Amino acid sequence: MRLRNVKNAYEILTSSFYFVENPKDYKNNLSSLFLTEQPIHLEIGCGKGQFLIGMAKKYPEINFIGIEKYDSVLVRAIQKCKEEDLHNLKFFCMDAKEILDVFHHDIETLYLNFSDPWPKNRHHERRLTSTTFLTLYESIFCDTPNVIQKTDNPILFASSLEDFSKNGYILSNVSLNLHETEIENVNTEYEDKFVKLGQPIYYLKAIQKK
Amino acid sequence: MRLRNVKNAYEILTSSFYFVENPKDYKNNLSSLFLTEQPIHLEIGCGKGQFLIGMAKKYPEINFIGIEKYDSVLVRAIQKCKEEDLHNLKFFCMDAKEILDVFHHDIETLYLNFSDPWPKNRHHERRLTSTTFLTLYESIFCDTPNVIQKTDNPILFASSLEDFSKNGYILSNVSLNLHETEIENVNTEYEDKFVKLGQPIYYLKAIQKK
Repeated sequence: MRLRNVKNAYEILTSSFYFVENPKDYKNNLSSLFLTEQPIHLEIGCGKGQFLIGMAKKYPEINFIGIEKYDSVLVRAIQKCKEEDLHNLKFFCMDAKEILDVFHHDIETLYLNFSDPWPKNRHHERRLTSTTFLTLYESIFCDTPNVIQKTDNPILFASSLEDFSKNGYILSNVSLNLHETEIENVNTEYEDKFVKLGQPIYYLKAIQKK
Repeated sequence: MRLRNVKNAYEILTSSFYFVENPKDYKNNLSSLFLTEQPIHLEIGCGKGQFLIGMAKKYPEINFIGIEKYDSVLVRAIQKCKEEDLHNLKFFCMDAKEILDVFHHDIETLYLNFSDPWPKNRHHERRLTSTTFLTLYESIFCDTPNVIQKTDNPILFASSLEDFSKNGYILSNVSLNLHETEIENVNTEYEDKFVKLGQPIYYLKAIQKK
């Protein structure tokens, strides 16, 4: 867990109802973090939290967890939650590489929103949809692996389409312009900016074939 | 076979070395149309022929067949060939729906370039990458079904990605901007126009998993 770069970050995070300091302690017992036992959806790289806070308000019948590597970013998400009264939302400060230390057959749906594109070919395996990561995710799902991705980056999107396909996922709801479709959607902070600039958002759902 | 709308279309087509009047007669014997027995690649909807003529010049080690529904369009392809001396290129005037009357385990690669997008959802099954057509194509391939598609239409491309995925194809070389990649390419007539307008060309290779 990283706690640096923001003054009082540790205090801000640990004093919040929405923040879980030692997520590894909840391995195989994630539901105990929530008021109600119900499906858990995970966002890897939740950033400043707008998407997940919006989702938690819109879908009270789902528990949401956001993980974010940078505490300085996560502090912003925690601050946004102050005015909310959400019992179905928790944030962890951790790296995606560590997910198997925390998650184990608990997640129904995984969101990857505007992940780092790592546009150079030699960094392909760092992309959160690379075979390396897709293999890592397999044991976090309670049922069939089920990923929803959106990005503005055409290189990441093309490479994700290939990687999902190679790893036995079936693609649905593919769109090269999410905001021209009727797909239910909550914007991220980044997405707000891109949409204002008129840039297309790429979107897909991928479910691994049993 | 349709021969209408162009004056002397029948004469122009049938007097050409590149045109095959009764392709059904060559079912199970397509190689006899060519000087050399070598892999056969097919383009469905070859239009005015620029792509296939370019390919036939670039790859003399491959035999190419273009099928086109409209004789008035195919006449243009035939006229373009006049100056060429290509022994690895033939054109048939026929509908894609009739392919099983002509092709049977002879094709190595299928090209679908700028196919009619049929953008309305209710016309989905008319798209040349719909499950209806992908099923139809299966028995035309001599080995693993292998399709290369390019289009400027985001709705057709997104729907094709889903349909290839649902039908057990593995995607590779996906690009949302073909002309910014190093993928080997011969432009179609349409493509020349779109590229001049700065519009992205979407591209994929799809190979059915055995």
